[in-house]
Amino acid sequence: MQLLDGNLCAEQIRQEITQKVDAIKASGQRAPHLAAVLVGNDGASENYVAFKVKDCAQVGFESTTIRLPDTVTEDELLAKVAELNADDGIDGFIVQLPLPKHIDENKIILAIDAKKDVDGFSPVSVGKLNLGLPTFISATPNGIMELLARYKIETEGKHCVVLGRSNIVGTPMAVLMSRNTNPGNATVTIAHSRTKNLKELCLSADILIVAIGKTEFVTADMVKQGAVVIDVGQTRVPDTTKKNGFRNVGDVDFDNVKEKCSYITYVTGGVGPMTRASLLQNTLKAHQAR
Amino acid sequence: MQLLDGNLCAEQIRQEITQKVDAIKASGQRAPHLAAVLVGNDGASENYVAFKVKDCAQVGFESTTIRLPDTVTEDELLAKVAELNADDGIDGFIVQLPLPKHIDENKIILAIDAKKDVDGFSPVSVGKLNLGLPTFISATPNGIMELLARYKIETEGKHCVVLGRSNIVGTPMAVLMSRNTNPGNATVTIAHSRTKNLKELCLSADILIVAIGKTEFVTADMVKQGAVVIDVGQTRVPDTTKKNGFRNVGDVDFDNVKEKCSYITYVTGGVGPMTRASLLQNTLKAHQAR
Repeated sequence: MQLLDGNLCAEQIRQEITQKVDAIKASGQRAPHLAAVLVGNDGASENYVAFKVKDCAQVGFESTTIRLPDTVTEDELLAKVAELNADDGIDGFIVQLPLPKHIDENKIILAIDAKKDVDGFSPVSVGKLNLGLPTFISATPNGIMELLARYKIETEGKHCVVLGRSNIVGTPMAVLMSRNTNPGNATVTIAHSRTKNLKELCLSADILIVAIGKTEFVTADMVKQGAVVIDVGQTRVPDTTKKNGFRNVGDVDFDNVKEKCSYITYVTGGVGPMTRASLLQNTLKAHQAR
Repeated sequence: MQLLDGNLCAEQIRQEITQKVDAIKASGQRAPHLAAVLVGNDGASENYVAFKVKDCAQVGFESTTIRLPDTVTEDELLAKVAELNADDGIDGFIVQLPLPKHIDENKIILAIDAKKDVDGFSPVSVGKLNLGLPTFISATPNGIMELLARYKIETEGKHCVVLGRSNIVGTPMAVLMSRNTNPGNATVTIAHSRTKNLKELCLSADILIVAIGKTEFVTADMVKQGAVVIDVGQTRVPDTTKKNGFRNVGDVDFDNVKEKCSYITYVTGGVGPMTRASLLQNTLKAHQAR
């Protein structure tokens, strides 16, 4: 069993980006600039945005965090999006999800200019991904493709089972793995809550990508010997032994599953850092396209 | 075995649309108007466009066919697209594919205003389909969903295997069947030329949707007893016994496969008429959105 080290690959990516940013600055251009809109005070969202700011600093990007209270109206948030769309000093921006219930997330995402949609959530970005056109690919699926590529994992003709059909992970992941690309060219099955014989299906997977948000859902009896297992899940569960009062638990029962795998990611240091690195890649791409 | 009668369902759809068009006209509005751009003199393309014009006439739509020689330049075609985008008298239009090799099809599709993209091929349309937002759904997948719905075929929890990963049929079909909708909620596998154990995979399908363009590729030994088989393939093969010199052959060996099926489509009168009816539905939708 080999651990797929997201921290290591993400660090490689950040170093590659740093070199490009150095060259950009040396040529007299301004550095790429990412803005993040953070609504309210959700602990997880705060953390995510803080990491993104830190990542930007490391590679030499500028970053701006825009904090709005959770009482912000949809119209006020739309006005902020319009302002960021028009701001020539910002290459790309994200609106950290989830948003308060009184705001229609789709409306906000639809308002983001596709040229600055570094999260890759807008219809234009998603459509281009499906059509195999250059675009901003949603950060988590892109990060997983990078991980498979950097570990040179053979995917062609393999059976890839994707557990979860979300717009930002499961569905784009399934599409990317089925494309005529490398990594890709896999036979892909999209499974979800209505899937029957899930155990049998998972057992047939050469590559199992799990993004359903149910802690330790995938157990050892569901995994084929030698499979590649990618765990996207990350759920905070209370843990009084930890300083911050919680620990992150994945969708895969790592301790028992790992022995059966050729490659596996761990809940921390696996997909998460790759997702963050992908956002940097997209921001660099947005800067280059301008 | 029951034949899924696309002619019958398409006729139902056309009658439903006719009633709506009558009401539109009675209210004093102009009828929906579809334009089709036909480049060159490809026999199949000529036929497709002729059918579309005929369909429009039947439901009371206006239609316009714009013929351009196969020597038309990309810029000239882009100019025509821009003209149609701006024409307030036209609700939706299609550019009949394939185009001559000197024209970049993607460039043309990207130039079509999403509001008039009744073929559903543009990134915005494809992205919205993936995100579950209202949009123009590519005509063939939409027609197949209609067929499944009108025959009340149970899809939830079924294993649906889609053979073919094209942008306009296989991939959107797979996404639609996996969504939390009815029809939908199937466990979906996307298979293609790199898939191994194709026979075994097809044998596991409760619903088999075939869109690979290889004549009579799916044989009886690849189909599970009781399966639903949808044949999207339609290849012209020379046949001197026919008046027009050819006959259409599907991707499924119909004569031998049909006995194993609960439901099956035939190469003619199956998916084809549903595709045509979907274009009318999209054109009506474009008219209503304006």
